[in-house]
Amino acid sequence: MARRYDQRTTIFSPEGRVYQVEYAMTAIRHAGATVGILAKDGIVLAAEKKTTAKLLDSSTSISEKMFKIDEHVVCAVAGITSDANILINYARLSSQRFFYQYQEPMPVEQLVSQICDTKQGYTQYGGLRPFGVSFLYAGWDRHYGFQLYQSDPSGNFAGWKATSIGGENSQVAQSVLRSNYKPDISLKEALQLALKVLTKTMDRSNINSEKLEFSYFTKQGDNVVYHIFTAAELDAFIKETDLEQETEDN
Amino acid sequence: MARRYDQRTTIFSPEGRVYQVEYAMTAIRHAGATVGILAKDGIVLAAEKKTTAKLLDSSTSISEKMFKIDEHVVCAVAGITSDANILINYARLSSQRFFYQYQEPMPVEQLVSQICDTKQGYTQYGGLRPFGVSFLYAGWDRHYGFQLYQSDPSGNFAGWKATSIGGENSQVAQSVLRSNYKPDISLKEALQLALKVLTKTMDRSNINSEKLEFSYFTKQGDNVVYHIFTAAELDAFIKETDLEQETEDN
Amino acid sequence: MARRYDQRTTIFSPEGRVYQVEYAMTAIRHAGATVGILAKDGIVLAAEKKTTAKLLDSSTSISEKMFKIDEHVVCAVAGITSDANILINYARLSSQRFFYQYQEPMPVEQLVSQICDTKQGYTQYGGLRPFGVSFLYAGWDRHYGFQLYQSDPSGNFAGWKATSIGGENSQVAQSVLRSNYKPDISLKEALQLALKVLTKTMDRSNINSEKLEFSYFTKQGDNVVYHIFTAAELDAFIKETDLEQETEDN
Amino acid sequence: MARRYDQRTTIFSPEGRVYQVEYAMTAIRHAGATVGILAKDGIVLAAEKKTTAKLLDSSTSISEKMFKIDEHVVCAVAGITSDANILINYARLSSQRFFYQYQEPMPVEQLVSQICDTKQGYTQYGGLRPFGVSFLYAGWDRHYGFQLYQSDPSGNFAGWKATSIGGENSQVAQSVLRSNYKPDISLKEALQLALKVLTKTMDRSNINSEKLEFSYFTKQGDNVVYHIFTAAELDAFIKETDLEQETEDN
Amino acid sequence: MARRYDQRTTIFSPEGRVYQVEYAMTAIRHAGATVGILAKDGIVLAAEKKTTAKLLDSSTSISEKMFKIDEHVVCAVAGITSDANILINYARLSSQRFFYQYQEPMPVEQLVSQICDTKQGYTQYGGLRPFGVSFLYAGWDRHYGFQLYQSDPSGNFAGWKATSIGGENSQVAQSVLRSNYKPDISLKEALQLALKVLTKTMDRSNINSEKLEFSYFTKQGDNVVYHIFTAAELDAFIKETDLEQETEDN
Amino acid sequence: MARRYDQRTTIFSPEGRVYQVEYAMTAIRHAGATVGILAKDGIVLAAEKKTTAKLLDSSTSISEKMFKIDEHVVCAVAGITSDANILINYARLSSQRFFYQYQEPMPVEQLVSQICDTKQGYTQYGGLRPFGVSFLYAGWDRHYGFQLYQSDPSGNFAGWKATSIGGENSQVAQSVLRSNYKPDISLKEALQLALKVLTKTMDRSNINSEKLEFSYFTKQGDNVVYHIFTAAELDAFIKETDLEQETEDN
Amino acid sequence: MARRYDQRTTIFSPEGRVYQVEYAMTAIRHAGATVGILAKDGIVLAAEKKTTAKLLDSSTSISEKMFKIDEHVVCAVAGITSDANILINYARLSSQRFFYQYQEPMPVEQLVSQICDTKQGYTQYGGLRPFGVSFLYAGWDRHYGFQLYQSDPSGNFAGWKATSIGGENSQVAQSVLRSNYKPDISLKEALQLALKVLTKTMDRSNINSEKLEFSYFTKQGDNVVYHIFTAAELDAFIKETDLEQETEDN
Repeated sequence: MARRYDQRTTIFSPEGRVYQVEYAMTAIRHAGATVGILAKDGIVLAAEKKTTAKLLDSSTSISEKMFKIDEHVVCAVAGITSDANILINYARLSSQRFFYQYQEPMPVEQLVSQICDTKQGYTQYGGLRPFGVSFLYAGWDRHYGFQLYQSDPSGNFAGWKATSIGGENSQVAQSVLRSNYKPDISLKEALQLALKVLTKTMDRSNINSEKLEFSYFTKQGDNVVYHIFTAAELDAFIKETDLEQETEDN
Repeated sequence: MARRYDQRTTIFSPEGRVYQVEYAMTAIRHAGATVGILAKDGIVLAAEKKTTAKLLDSSTSISEKMFKIDEHVVCAVAGITSDANILINYARLSSQRFFYQYQEPMPVEQLVSQICDTKQGYTQYGGLRPFGVSFLYAGWDRHYGFQLYQSDPSGNFAGWKATSIGGENSQVAQSVLRSNYKPDISLKEALQLALKVLTKTMDRSNINSEKLEFSYFTKQGDNVVYHIFTAAELDAFIKETDLEQETEDN
Repeated sequence: MARRYDQRTTIFSPEGRVYQVEYAMTAIRHAGATVGILAKDGIVLAAEKKTTAKLLDSSTSISEKMFKIDEHVVCAVAGITSDANILINYARLSSQRFFYQYQEPMPVEQLVSQICDTKQGYTQYGGLRPFGVSFLYAGWDRHYGFQLYQSDPSGNFAGWKATSIGGENSQVAQSVLRSNYKPDISLKEALQLALKVLTKTMDRSNINSEKLEFSYFTKQGDNVVYHIFTAAELDAFIKETDLEQETEDN
Repeated sequence: MARRYDQRTTIFSPEGRVYQVEYAMTAIRHAGATVGILAKDGIVLAAEKKTTAKLLDSSTSISEKMFKIDEHVVCAVAGITSDANILINYARLSSQRFFYQYQEPMPVEQLVSQICDTKQGYTQYGGLRPFGVSFLYAGWDRHYGFQLYQSDPSGNFAGWKATSIGGENSQVAQSVLRSNYKPDISLKEALQLALKVLTKTMDRSNINSEKLEFSYFTKQGDNVVYHIFTAAELDAFIKETDLEQETEDN
Repeated sequence: MARRYDQRTTIFSPEGRVYQVEYAMTAIRHAGATVGILAKDGIVLAAEKKTTAKLLDSSTSISEKMFKIDEHVVCAVAGITSDANILINYARLSSQRFFYQYQEPMPVEQLVSQICDTKQGYTQYGGLRPFGVSFLYAGWDRHYGFQLYQSDPSGNFAGWKATSIGGENSQVAQSVLRSNYKPDISLKEALQLALKVLTKTMDRSNINSEKLEFSYFTKQGDNVVYHIFTAAELDAFIKETDLEQETEDN
Repeated sequence: MARRYDQRTTIFSPEGRVYQVEYAMTAIRHAGATVGILAKDGIVLAAEKKTTAKLLDSSTSISEKMFKIDEHVVCAVAGITSDANILINYARLSSQRFFYQYQEPMPVEQLVSQICDTKQGYTQYGGLRPFGVSFLYAGWDRHYGFQLYQSDPSGNFAGWKATSIGGENSQVAQSVLRSNYKPDISLKEALQLALKVLTKTMDRSNINSEKLEFSYFTKQGDNVVYHIFTAAELDAFIKETDLEQETEDN
Repeated sequence: MARRYDQRTTIFSPEGRVYQVEYAMTAIRHAGATVGILAKDGIVLAAEKKTTAKLLDSSTSISEKMFKIDEHVVCAVAGITSDANILINYARLSSQRFFYQYQEPMPVEQLVSQICDTKQGYTQYGGLRPFGVSFLYAGWDRHYGFQLYQSDPSGNFAGWKATSIGGENSQVAQSVLRSNYKPDISLKEALQLALKVLTKTMDRSNINSEKLEFSYFTKQGDNVVYHIFTAAELDAFIKETDLEQETEDN
């Protein structure tokens, strides 16, 4: 049945489905898993890297999965990177334009909402395909403090305490998050939970700084600080967490 | 027969039907049921939540189904949320622009009518699909007081005293409403009727604050007030209603 | 044969037919019948209501089938209501713009002609479907006095003394009109004739104020007055007419 | 063979034909016949009416087939009336704009030529269908005096002394014209010839004022006058002509 | 093979052909033949008329095949007349605009080139069909004196001493021209040669003023003069030529 | 396999080919061969003429294959002439606009590059077909002196010392050029080499001024001079070369 | 399965793939291999030339595979050259416009990012095909010093220390790079590594200046210098490297 309705973006199938959006979501499943956790004192973004290219130039290609939009908001992507770039550029411009106009950082939800409206348009107008990318947005503003949002190719979005996008085992990831998240989780615990989620969904032998990216948002005094783990920091963190885990298990 | 006419938005089938609009309506049936009741002293909007994600951040994602358009008008949606967002943004803008121009709130019907004209266009022009979303609009203005409207993907709309959208058992919902509604219903009775409708159409075990959203519009002195039940308030209300029901039954 | 030519608005079939227009006319046949009669002292518009929703809010949804365009012209619709809304809005705007420019009411025929030109365009340009709606326009201007026009989805229109649109038994309706209309018919007789037409084409048990709408245009002194029957007025009129009928029959 | 080339306006078939234009001409054949004759002192336009609706309001729908474009030029149509309306409105506007600019009536041929260029465009651009209407234009200007033009859906036109459009028996009509037309024909003889043509192509029993329209252009002093026969005038004329005919035959 | 590539204007077939252009040329073959001959003291244009309508009004429809573009340039057409009209209007406008700008007649080749660029565009852009018309352009300018050009639906054109377009026997026409043309041909000889060409390609019985059009360009003193033969002149010329021919043959 | 991918300009086949471009190149193969040779003191352009029409007017249609773009640059074409005209007009305009802006001739490569960008666009955007024409550009500027460029329908171009386009035997032509070209070739030797190439690829009996076009660019003092051989010059040159050849062969 | 989804740019297949982008990548595989290596004191770009045309004019067609964008950035291409030209022109313009606005060279990554956004658009909008070209960008700016980027038809890009595009044996090339690259590689060693890569992926007999292009970026004092090897330099370098290799091997 699907066959007759899936070739055009802008039509409903008799069951009321828009197939192109569903296929775009499949594109995201091929990407590595990305986890976001909202802690009481910050936000964790952690991702599995699919590329093994050790020749990538880390000075210019800082991160494969995480992109800074503005001082107060970053995003992690799963899906087609060139599609993501377009939306990230658009988000950067929106954020700067807002600041220029109102002299204060753009509220995070407003930024997310604007990008999602653009995404939605690509699912409804003919001659376009949906953006093949899901996002986790992590940000801070004076209205709601730290916030974590997730959006998908349909343009749908919501605020989450902990969630994951991409990856073949996303069910597992969601369930690990559900059973381990607690409302007053600290940033450190959130980092450890993120590692736990990725450990459960990835091949164990890949749990190292070559296949993982970890970053977090936190506040230092009045400043919001975003930090991406260096390879050394990440390996040290993995080792330390392993030790603690063992201690805990004993 | 349907097969040959359903892939294009902008054509009639030989029986005079526009299939894409009918398929869009099917998309709405998959959504949870939403009930609206016009009481003599306010309006009730109540909905079934489909998402079970307990990790949703309730501070940013205030409501899954109900959206404030302006101080004097809100809407409840059934269908594709990202489609709904586009129309809600458009409604917010229209309402603010009206206020800016005339220094008084936009009449509710005029607002609904404007959004519906947009919806209609998406059923008549090529290269587009209809918006896959139905709305209940609840509002108050000085011309007609409290008002409740319902619109569907075709852009059709009408004012109702009590109605429901979405849900697989919408027939049941409509019939419960028809046999229980009385013209001089009070807000409290309306809340209880809404709960009754949802109890009849949903799995009984889901009748709790995790699967339901309740809100109402009322007047306090000269002010129109919109209130969404917190989880605690909702659970208390369900319990109280159950007791009353039993008392009544005995 | 039809099959190959009916999926595009903008082509002729080998027999010189434009199928999309013919299918749009089918859409109108599903609607309830609407009757218009031009009397010497006014115009009658009467319609069968298809919706049985007793919960419709009659204060905001004043009429299901009849819409005021301006003080001096109203219309009754048969077909897709959301399509009709677009054209009615357009008509209202045209009429007001005319008044603003020339300080006198827009001549009825000019208004009808303008709307029909819009309708025609939707049957000739690609990527559109025809408007699925027929209209009866009733109006008064100082050039031709009371006037009654009918238009269909092709954009064709003509002035009539008595006519009907919509309904499965439109042949019957037309024939009752033809055999009962007389040139010097009074408004009251016209109302009775309209009731007779609907009685012949509808299920007899539905002949009551829940399933019917009656309205008329007349002059009171120098003013043109448009009146829609309330439920009470309508039931009284039906009863009275029945009595007269019986008296007549005896 | 036709099948593969006839669904698109803008292509030639291998034999060099544009099928959509030919199908549009078929649409015209279904219309009633219309005859135009150029006399030495005027022009006759006569047509068969297809509609039998005795309830048509003759005060507003003055003529079914003949339309005044300006004081000095009228047209008779065969085909889709709503298509014709668009072109007639366009012609009226062109004619008025010309007068406004040059302070003299627009030359008839220039007017016809302009409309035909519009018609041609609809046969060459994608996403459109040709106008399904043929015209007879009758007019007078100071350059060429009385003139009669015929145009078809392709946008082709020519000046004629006597011609007919529409009708299933157009061959017969043309041949009656050819054998009866004489260069110095008077307006009265032209009226009689037109009646003869229609008598030969129509069902004899329909030769009355209900099924026919007659009109003529002539000069009274310096003024060009256009007159449409009333029902009474037309019936009288038919009777008188019959008598003469009989007299002649004897 | 042709089948798969001929329905779209804007594609090449695997053999590198553009079928729509070739089909447009077929359309021209159905038209009557038109001959152009460049003499030392003028240019001859002669054509076969296909229409037998003796009722055509010769005062307004001066010529069926030949059209004046400006004082110094005319054209003869073969193919779809309404397509030709569009290009001729365009040519007239271009010529007048040139004169207005430079105060001298537009060079003939520049005019032809401009029209041909328009023609070419219709063979390369989607959603259009080629113009189904070929032209002979005859003109005079101070740069090259008398000139004769031929263009076809592809937009290709070239200057010719003698050539023909249209007609089923165009091979014959070309060959008669090739064997009879001489570089210092006089206008009178050219007229006779044109008649000879048409005599060979048409049904002999049609060689009269009803089925032929003859015209020529020549200089009288400093003025370029264009003349179309009247019926009388043409018949006289045919008779005279026949006599000479016989004299010659004897 | 080709079948499914060749009907749309703007798609790649699974092997990464754009068929429409390849088909356009086939169109060029049907054209006569054209040879360009860069000599130390000029450039030779020589071509085979396909048209045998001895009635072509050589005063207006100066050359069938070679076109002057500006004083310092000419081109020879192979393919669809009307497509070529569009690009040549565009080139002329670009060149003049450049001169007007900078008061010096447009550098040849810049001109070629600009035309080729236009060509490329027609291979990538929907609703268009590629230009069915290849060019040899010969020019001189103060930056690189004499230059010879070749471009094809894809918009690809390169500078060459000697090359050929069009013709069924283009392999032969290329190989004759490769084995006979020497870096310090004189203009005269280049003319002879061009003749040799055409002699090898054409029917020997056509080696005369009716079937060939020869032209060259050279410098006389400070001036760049472009010369097209007259028929007499060309025949003399062929004869002379034949003699030399024979002398050489002996 | 692929068959049904690969003919439209703008749709996803059910597996979430965009076939047109994948086919465009196939087009690149047919091109010769191109290698880029980032050394501590410069960048090497080396490529295999596919064209054997010894008659190419090396003074105007300086390089087949490498193009200067600005003083501080060059690119090497693999794929359809005319597609590449469009993007290179666009890059040149962007770079110059940036300099004009900010009076400093455009940062390399910003330039690459801008071109890639353009590329992405051609994979998402209907009626277009993706650009069939991959790039290596080599550049220097004051922010990151020497940088090497690679982009593909999807618009994806990343910074690399060493990478290759095009060529049938791209796997081999990548693996040679991976096992031989060291972070502190000198420009000379990088040149030798590039030669090694090409030696492994090409036919050994083609390892000479006719089939190869070598260039590098380096700094001389404060200046960034880009140099393309002449044929002589290249042959000398190949010979020298061979000797060293042998010495090493012994």
